[in-house]
Amino acid sequence: MPVLLAPDQAPTLHELLAEANTVGLDCKPVDTRNESVPRIQGLGSLTSAGSTEISFLSNPKLRNQLDGCAAAAVIMTDADYQSLEARDHSYCIVLCSQPYLMYALLAQWFDQRRVSRLETGIHPTAIIAPTAHVADGVSIGPYCVIEEGVRIGQGSRLGAHCVIGTNVVLGNDCLLHARVTLYHNVTVGDRAILHSGSVFGADGFGFAPDPHNAAGAWAKIAQIGGVILGNDVEIGANTTVDRGALENTVVGNGVKLDNQIMIGHNVKIGDHTAMAACVGVAGSTIIGQRCTIAGAAMLSGHLVLGDDVHVSGGTAVTSNISTPGRYTGVYPFAEHSQWQRNAAVLSQLAQLRRRLRAVEKTHSNQ
Amino acid sequence: MPVLLAPDQAPTLHELLAEANTVGLDCKPVDTRNESVPRIQGLGSLTSAGSTEISFLSNPKLRNQLDGCAAAAVIMTDADYQSLEARDHSYCIVLCSQPYLMYALLAQWFDQRRVSRLETGIHPTAIIAPTAHVADGVSIGPYCVIEEGVRIGQGSRLGAHCVIGTNVVLGNDCLLHARVTLYHNVTVGDRAILHSGSVFGADGFGFAPDPHNAAGAWAKIAQIGGVILGNDVEIGANTTVDRGALENTVVGNGVKLDNQIMIGHNVKIGDHTAMAACVGVAGSTIIGQRCTIAGAAMLSGHLVLGDDVHVSGGTAVTSNISTPGRYTGVYPFAEHSQWQRNAAVLSQLAQLRRRLRAVEKTHSNQ
Amino acid sequence: MPVLLAPDQAPTLHELLAEANTVGLDCKPVDTRNESVPRIQGLGSLTSAGSTEISFLSNPKLRNQLDGCAAAAVIMTDADYQSLEARDHSYCIVLCSQPYLMYALLAQWFDQRRVSRLETGIHPTAIIAPTAHVADGVSIGPYCVIEEGVRIGQGSRLGAHCVIGTNVVLGNDCLLHARVTLYHNVTVGDRAILHSGSVFGADGFGFAPDPHNAAGAWAKIAQIGGVILGNDVEIGANTTVDRGALENTVVGNGVKLDNQIMIGHNVKIGDHTAMAACVGVAGSTIIGQRCTIAGAAMLSGHLVLGDDVHVSGGTAVTSNISTPGRYTGVYPFAEHSQWQRNAAVLSQLAQLRRRLRAVEKTHSNQ
Repeated sequence: MPVLLAPDQAPTLHELLAEANTVGLDCKPVDTRNESVPRIQGLGSLTSAGSTEISFLSNPKLRNQLDGCAAAAVIMTDADYQSLEARDHSYCIVLCSQPYLMYALLAQWFDQRRVSRLETGIHPTAIIAPTAHVADGVSIGPYCVIEEGVRIGQGSRLGAHCVIGTNVVLGNDCLLHARVTLYHNVTVGDRAILHSGSVFGADGFGFAPDPHNAAGAWAKIAQIGGVILGNDVEIGANTTVDRGALENTVVGNGVKLDNQIMIGHNVKIGDHTAMAACVGVAGSTIIGQRCTIAGAAMLSGHLVLGDDVHVSGGTAVTSNISTPGRYTGVYPFAEHSQWQRNAAVLSQLAQLRRRLRAVEKTHSNQ
Repeated sequence: MPVLLAPDQAPTLHELLAEANTVGLDCKPVDTRNESVPRIQGLGSLTSAGSTEISFLSNPKLRNQLDGCAAAAVIMTDADYQSLEARDHSYCIVLCSQPYLMYALLAQWFDQRRVSRLETGIHPTAIIAPTAHVADGVSIGPYCVIEEGVRIGQGSRLGAHCVIGTNVVLGNDCLLHARVTLYHNVTVGDRAILHSGSVFGADGFGFAPDPHNAAGAWAKIAQIGGVILGNDVEIGANTTVDRGALENTVVGNGVKLDNQIMIGHNVKIGDHTAMAACVGVAGSTIIGQRCTIAGAAMLSGHLVLGDDVHVSGGTAVTSNISTPGRYTGVYPFAEHSQWQRNAAVLSQLAQLRRRLRAVEKTHSNQ
Repeated sequence: MPVLLAPDQAPTLHELLAEANTVGLDCKPVDTRNESVPRIQGLGSLTSAGSTEISFLSNPKLRNQLDGCAAAAVIMTDADYQSLEARDHSYCIVLCSQPYLMYALLAQWFDQRRVSRLETGIHPTAIIAPTAHVADGVSIGPYCVIEEGVRIGQGSRLGAHCVIGTNVVLGNDCLLHARVTLYHNVTVGDRAILHSGSVFGADGFGFAPDPHNAAGAWAKIAQIGGVILGNDVEIGANTTVDRGALENTVVGNGVKLDNQIMIGHNVKIGDHTAMAACVGVAGSTIIGQRCTIAGAAMLSGHLVLGDDVHVSGGTAVTSNISTPGRYTGVYPFAEHSQWQRNAAVLSQLAQLRRRLRAVEKTHSNQ
């Protein structure tokens, strides 16, 4: 962790666990070899945590990293603890049935210390239209522009240079990092986290052929729908979610989108679906709940994916998927000259099959 | 349509059709069952339009959606109208040979009502260099920065936070949404629409090996060309068009680029070509007129694509295409374990062909 | 070259070569047919350079372009010069063993003329926190926001609208174009060039399953690592480099990243590695030195690529690569109906191999 709390601001282990464990996980120190567990100044991996930091073991395959671990305390499951047997260790052990979730909670706790030191309030350079309604406790950074009819819920924080278009509704406790753009008539639920450079409500890509103008010319279809983001959504840097053509583009509750993702107009994404970076979803596609779409996957338009569908990285999904499961379609890479040989045959596959059939026929006739 | 016009601002059906139909389409109400067609407050799909909205049928496959349609009026072709026969309907019918284009015109009309209410003029926080020339009727949003030597044509509108570099020329009636960046010496024609986060004129990716510095080091090739966008261009959110190395990167008239597209240096794109989101075009590639490049397709550098070439989504184009037509190259996705089996064989294709040849040879020798 | 120097600001050929050749290349005029070589106002390609511009021949395949070349002077190797023989030419010849590198140096020289005319100093609208330290000779553009604890080294220039988060360290002589965002605790070396829309230090994509909340719900793993960029790094427009989960995401010295690239959390990129546009690198992957990753390639997470690995465009790298060389994996595109036929067989490849084996077995039994 690049930044450690100062010693006088660091909690004791018990204080830390009590404050961070907001979801009531089972989590208790069991083996405090060292009576004086130091105050916990930070959080680190097993290999990097120092003697005033807490660490965690969430993957049994990494048990061997416990050997040289210099952390003050390590969170692990009972099974991992048993595996330690009599092995020597200097760290205190914290038993928890879900060390990875506990790690997430601890990281939130430490990050919150940093966030709480940030300035709050409305910066004097923010431009807020007279008809905008900004609730109590909202922070608005320098050079933000809040247009007419906007509503911002309590506790929300906007970084520098955000532009919030007319009639946007932003829920409570949202965090917009610097330089987020919301076009007009976008609605965002509570606790959204929107990263820098993300754009919501740009026009969907809709054009009608317009031969009256010129051969091949296109007439713009003005996009008069909106965008609705649910609660607990997080959207990565430079991701774009286009507005609907006539109705709304909808991102469900708890959806997590990584960086540089493109969501086309009229798309609907079900609750708790997560997408890794560089995914593209073309217009009007409907994605179910609890799906995962791995990095750089591409979904064609007007498709329907059911719930619990998992698409592998780089896969082009070109037809509906109704059955839960994992789906893949990526060309296996190889050393270049080997690829050349195989790829050359690939373009003759249909012919190859015909030749095989011919051979098979000869056989069956023999 | 999320926002409806107030009843007293809504046009009659005849007023609406007359005002929206700016290209002289054949378009007339033929079957106003209801003497008192209400004023038209909005535009919606067949399944969502309410009793004060107009809708359209552009795809005969959706004829069954006419059954429950609650719209005030529906635009359709004569053929679709005849198919209705005696079927009961409450909506007025508007005959038009091109319902989809008429829909585009209506959407433009409604969106224009929203746009016309926006503030105009030059915001006092916009910083405009003394040598910049801003024509009459130009709107410039808060915190825009207009550098030396810029020229902005009449009727153009810039959203908040646009940065317009030195010596940029922007035509008439352009619309730059919030947070568009034009580097120095970029030229834009008339009626361009540039979406938020798009960047024009960043340096092309050019480096020369510089072994004098270190093994593997690169010397920057300063990019001293520019970017030229034609008339009637629309560019999506977070799309980037790099400046040329020595000459210009050129985007033709009527070209439409979706979001998150990357156009490399020295690329030339012919008139009326359209590209869907996440496409990448590497440096110095030349693309003809009226091409369509579907989402996430990738074009290698230094290629030439002729006119009327259509590239399917996700396709990697690695050599020239001179014949009009549709081109595709995407790995067909499948359930993961099936993909694993097939992909494993794929890397032995050349060997497979050799084995087939051996079998064939045995046959021909028998 | 779109912009030429005014005649009275243009250098003589000897002056230009002396000033531009900062790395001590062998480079001398040998054949000044024309006693009065004009002053050199600009730099152009062989086919476009005019009579007051200098050009270069770096690829022997383009020798035929020398025929109609109208440039004032042409840089070429001795071998290319010898190939000219008695051919007539009006341009002066400059011999150089590395014309492409000399071109890079000349382009830098001309671009520097443009840059040197830009305004410098700290714009009065820049907001600089009291605890930020800005060295001498730093330029900060309009509406920049520099937060608490930032340090900016001497000679660095920030375009309009940059946002520099708390405790960022920026080295000497960096160039940030307009609208670059650095989140808190990002460190940048000397001479970095960061293009518009790039974002450094947004949260990595990390979530732990949180069934306490809802089925399929995710708990955010706060990203408390940082980002470190080395010296001489260039990063393209709208590229994003995420902060580490616990430790740092690291971009080595001399690394060049094109536009719209996504670097996930905890990634390490070795010195002098270059990536073309639209590449995605998933979290925790380690890439060696002097690698090249061509456009739209995708690297899965938690991989290790050694030094001198070259990945072709569009290739999905899904496993470690330890041997230097070129690696490829892209589906060969074809006319659509041909692709359809071959792709259909592709999904039966495993079956095809079984059938071939059966035929082979019959043979061996005969």
